Amino acid sequence: MNFCSDNVTGVAPEIMAALAAANAGAAMGYGNDDITRRVEKLVSDLFETETAVFPVATGTAANALALSVMAPSYGAIYCHELAHINVDECGAPELFTGGAKLIDLPGANGKLDAALLLDELAKGTQGNVHNAQPAAVSLTQATECGTVYKADEICEISELAHKHKLRVHMDGTRFANAVTGLGCSPAEISWRAGVDVLSLGGTKNGAMAAEAIIFFDRALSASFGYHRKRGGHLFSKMRFVSAQLEALLKDGLWLKHAAHSNEMARRLADGIARLPGIRILNPVEANLFYVRMPEVALAGLEADGFKFYREGGPETIRIVTAFNTDPAHVDAFIASASRHAAAARSSAA
Amino acid sequence: MNFCSDNVTGVAPEIMAALAAANAGAAMGYGNDDITRRVEKLVSDLFETETAVFPVATGTAANALALSVMAPSYGAIYCHELAHINVDECGAPELFTGGAKLIDLPGANGKLDAALLLDELAKGTQGNVHNAQPAAVSLTQATECGTVYKADEICEISELAHKHKLRVHMDGTRFANAVTGLGCSPAEISWRAGVDVLSLGGTKNGAMAAEAIIFFDRALSASFGYHRKRGGHLFSKMRFVSAQLEALLKDGLWLKHAAHSNEMARRLADGIARLPGIRILNPVEANLFYVRMPEVALAGLEADGFKFYREGGPETIRIVTAFNTDPAHVDAFIASASRHAAAARSSAA
Amino acid sequence: MNFCSDNVTGVAPEIMAALAAANAGAAMGYGNDDITRRVEKLVSDLFETETAVFPVATGTAANALALSVMAPSYGAIYCHELAHINVDECGAPELFTGGAKLIDLPGANGKLDAALLLDELAKGTQGNVHNAQPAAVSLTQATECGTVYKADEICEISELAHKHKLRVHMDGTRFANAVTGLGCSPAEISWRAGVDVLSLGGTKNGAMAAEAIIFFDRALSASFGYHRKRGGHLFSKMRFVSAQLEALLKDGLWLKHAAHSNEMARRLADGIARLPGIRILNPVEANLFYVRMPEVALAGLEADGFKFYREGGPETIRIVTAFNTDPAHVDAFIASASRHAAAARSSAA
Amino acid sequence: MNFCSDNVTGVAPEIMAALAAANAGAAMGYGNDDITRRVEKLVSDLFETETAVFPVATGTAANALALSVMAPSYGAIYCHELAHINVDECGAPELFTGGAKLIDLPGANGKLDAALLLDELAKGTQGNVHNAQPAAVSLTQATECGTVYKADEICEISELAHKHKLRVHMDGTRFANAVTGLGCSPAEISWRAGVDVLSLGGTKNGAMAAEAIIFFDRALSASFGYHRKRGGHLFSKMRFVSAQLEALLKDGLWLKHAAHSNEMARRLADGIARLPGIRILNPVEANLFYVRMPEVALAGLEADGFKFYREGGPETIRIVTAFNTDPAHVDAFIASASRHAAAARSSAA
Repeated sequence: MNFCSDNVTGVAPEIMAALAAANAGAAMGYGNDDITRRVEKLVSDLFETETAVFPVATGTAANALALSVMAPSYGAIYCHELAHINVDECGAPELFTGGAKLIDLPGANGKLDAALLLDELAKGTQGNVHNAQPAAVSLTQATECGTVYKADEICEISELAHKHKLRVHMDGTRFANAVTGLGCSPAEISWRAGVDVLSLGGTKNGAMAAEAIIFFDRALSASFGYHRKRGGHLFSKMRFVSAQLEALLKDGLWLKHAAHSNEMARRLADGIARLPGIRILNPVEANLFYVRMPEVALAGLEADGFKFYREGGPETIRIVTAFNTDPAHVDAFIASASRHAAAARSSAA
Repeated sequence: MNFCSDNVTGVAPEIMAALAAANAGAAMGYGNDDITRRVEKLVSDLFETETAVFPVATGTAANALALSVMAPSYGAIYCHELAHINVDECGAPELFTGGAKLIDLPGANGKLDAALLLDELAKGTQGNVHNAQPAAVSLTQATECGTVYKADEICEISELAHKHKLRVHMDGTRFANAVTGLGCSPAEISWRAGVDVLSLGGTKNGAMAAEAIIFFDRALSASFGYHRKRGGHLFSKMRFVSAQLEALLKDGLWLKHAAHSNEMARRLADGIARLPGIRILNPVEANLFYVRMPEVALAGLEADGFKFYREGGPETIRIVTAFNTDPAHVDAFIASASRHAAAARSSAA
Repeated sequence: MNFCSDNVTGVAPEIMAALAAANAGAAMGYGNDDITRRVEKLVSDLFETETAVFPVATGTAANALALSVMAPSYGAIYCHELAHINVDECGAPELFTGGAKLIDLPGANGKLDAALLLDELAKGTQGNVHNAQPAAVSLTQATECGTVYKADEICEISELAHKHKLRVHMDGTRFANAVTGLGCSPAEISWRAGVDVLSLGGTKNGAMAAEAIIFFDRALSASFGYHRKRGGHLFSKMRFVSAQLEALLKDGLWLKHAAHSNEMARRLADGIARLPGIRILNPVEANLFYVRMPEVALAGLEADGFKFYREGGPETIRIVTAFNTDPAHVDAFIASASRHAAAARSSAA
Repeated sequence: MNFCSDNVTGVAPEIMAALAAANAGAAMGYGNDDITRRVEKLVSDLFETETAVFPVATGTAANALALSVMAPSYGAIYCHELAHINVDECGAPELFTGGAKLIDLPGANGKLDAALLLDELAKGTQGNVHNAQPAAVSLTQATECGTVYKADEICEISELAHKHKLRVHMDGTRFANAVTGLGCSPAEISWRAGVDVLSLGGTKNGAMAAEAIIFFDRALSASFGYHRKRGGHLFSKMRFVSAQLEALLKDGLWLKHAAHSNEMARRLADGIARLPGIRILNPVEANLFYVRMPEVALAGLEADGFKFYREGGPETIRIVTAFNTDPAHVDAFIASASRHAAAARSSAA
């Protein structure tokens, strides 16, 4: 009963089957194979526009490599202070960009605040040789708080960015959860909302290790292949990364997975929201949320065998559900929380 | 009938089975799982010494990340001019070391020449602030020419290196082929011969995407985890990389695979070595070799459906066999080559 | 009548004389000269401890090169949000460290707040492979707001830093102004207060282009020479950089210069502090300060020929005095400001 | 009597005078001053074309910064194996380009061999994601052997380079010596011969610390200012670097200096060329050359107080003359060499 992360799960059976199917005969390496070709076509179809698509195997690579062609070494990249690229990648964006500077901004519920971004862009650093040069904005969709940007929120930021000649990157580790949560098309919250490059997650959505960097601005991808190769992220047996993406993206498996994990988060949150002493800290719009509850309740849950990360403040934990979260585990969590929360109140009274 | 590379093959069934077996239940991410622990133990047992082991998914990552902790940004790394790190990684070692300089040296049959290395080290650059500082030597075992360093050849170079305070790296993409070819123990041609860090290949030996960076000098690995993470090479679902390594390394599968591919290379080389106009360019000691033959013979082979890379000079091709090369394909190649070589001689006469 | 910066001034006559004197005969290049030797001795004497000293020519080089040996590429460097390294060096620390991350913190009057630093260090990122690793703290003395850290304020931060195994860097572009302002010894606010490496400024204190990186922790400097060279900061005719430092540091010229510039700032601030509508925004403890006054007064000063930078907020300017600021210019500024401030009040009434 | 290098000399009196003259009043920093404007004009006039000009203070900075905008991080830069950028800059080009790869080629007399360059470019690495991408060629004029490329030799290489879409850089540390030696115009052996960017040396030609990066392809310089700043090479009191360049370049001082140093080299070489056992190793076309002579003669010269570097092989030294080499020192060298060479022959007989 592990709610630590959507990466503690295994791999969906459809994806295991796709890997087995891909393992037939020889295929040229490094992406010169049929499956990779099909994924490229599939992505363009799904997003209703021509794209350039590059499979990689980790989210950190997907983000940092995308940024490597969006900001020069002397560039500045604006992001939320909780963004994965800012906090959880041990400096990968700095490595792959050759030293670009991340400028992190606060913002409620894990979302970039357009007004604060405008303040930064109004500082007059553009063209000033002493300052890192504004180059890109990176949004996380769904956010690290489990909230989701609506299309017009993305538009507001991307218009601001483009007006100042910045590129717009989206860390879409949980992009499927956002699409499902909003009930929109992939295009609506990506290129139609001004996103230039999307790092589309697969690993946390049931794949083994597969992400896709999708360029809506294809000119930006001209040198991408070199960056991917010298980063050690060009797989020789690429077909096995591509096969995972194909299995996810065709026939809607990615959205089915996301719908399930979103539903499980919703169910868990709803089940504990009104318990005494418990507070859900963010709107639950995707498959993760933060919740505060008394220490004794947290300890009780842990004693009952539930796993989660304590983070986000005192008596606060992060709950993440996944494509294969068992509803029975969710219900067991609710029951355990109910019991411990009640006990906590009694002892406090 | 593809002899282009040992990475055009698929994945061995034992490894597919291991992936399926690993896909049971949840497991903590980023290497905090049982399979990764077992791989660490397995490697230390196989190499008969305590090691620090880090799984990654590509050979370029395995080499460049190893070097990232073996040479400072102002360092020099000596290697053969044909070394993969020098020619085929689009600058990955330079990226991960922060700009270290590869100094490439010629040498017969793809092997570093100890005398030439000594000449370089005798130039007096050590301690001279104007020069990149000698930091490491990298050997490729088996070499890019398909030859194999004997233990005493490695010792000669590593003694020279250590005497000058350089570290010794081994690119062991085809290390299994070398162990099998020599009939020695893994230890004999690694740490017992002075190797400090080994990038052990799995992908070309039947895995999907799995390599291991093995530190015999464990102190060197202290900061390695940070470099791997910021390189985007720390897999969240690490167990699936580790499971491949485990399947390969336990019960001798890696050596069985290597023995087969070596045997297929031997068989093919023996079958064509005495054909008119054909010349094997290197001793055949592992699973690849270069061969020169008349253009019409090459064209004939291609017309018969054989694939290989034309490289290494005029009328020259590289032949690579793999863990699952079909002996019938080898025999077909020999038959086709015999026919075309004979025809070439006739038309020349 | 230019109050834009202490780098719009020329060079002190004593320093021009030292350059002329240094221009006698041949001398070995790259710091292998007598003057450089004497500067090393002089610095150790002045700071009452053994040091390792490296002359360079710009403040950005002095800071970024110092940091290059204080933080690894995966490291984090804590600094004030207004720090020169954070705002005004176009990513130089990122370049020279290979991509380390600057984590900037707010703090009153340009000073790092020890409590906020502790909060950061308590986040538990040390040893967590996902996070940039805490490596160094950088203080600016005097600060970018013209305030000065007292010895015990520095101690508080350096104790915190050392307790967490971080190194302490001091950007001492205006270190002389701080020493003079506090009336302390150089040692008291550097190594005795826990500073490991000091970037000591000369250029803004009357030199042409001369700074010194001073290692109190000499072991840290082992590889510094290589970083300086590959940064292009090892001067072939080094004696001419060293001669500037020698002229400044011997016979107290550096402190005489600083005393004058501090006095001029004090005089200017005192002269305008009580004018209507004018507010000095920081304690005036060195040779620069920020002041707010009505737009018409600012425009009036500009019309009268005074130059300064508009920065730090609306109707706000930065005033910087220098080693050779003419008291008559200061008095003229006060007179002009008085006239325009009075006029502004009249028109507002 | 120091023949070690043209950087062991001091500074020409005209340049000291220019520095004194520049030290009048305040001037805006960072190149926003009148002298820097005049240098830009002067360079364009001298080279008979519009240029973009950036002063810096060291030759390593001039080379590495120029290359930083001529090659991407995944690029390859071709140069002679003896090139300063390859051997003597401790990896500065690698630092400033973010890890580009220098591919060094042999060639007689320190000159790149166009046929060998063509061989490299014909290898088919362009567009191949596994290889560093050919980006630039760097020529050294005059070469590290003291020879000089004729205009048509430069043309041959730059045509080859441009045909393959590579940029052409010239390390012109001793460009003045080449211009003087050839008796040509600066344009003839720079942009008219296909050079895109020239690193023009001043320091070794009588300046204190002044070089100019000259872009004939001005579009290439768009981001140069940022690279210079983040490299710590934007001087706040820039006028003092520019003043040196102005003094050198106006009224032909740079060529007068070069003519003298070339003449001194010629005189010295002529004086010893026919001595027994002595062999001048390269054509003497600028202000340095290599010479081989018996060890006893070398020891004798050293005992007589002559300084030079022993390098380039056994019993081999490098002789460098400078703008202010005293003819009496040259004649004394000849006399000493004659005496010792004769003695060497006697004792050998």
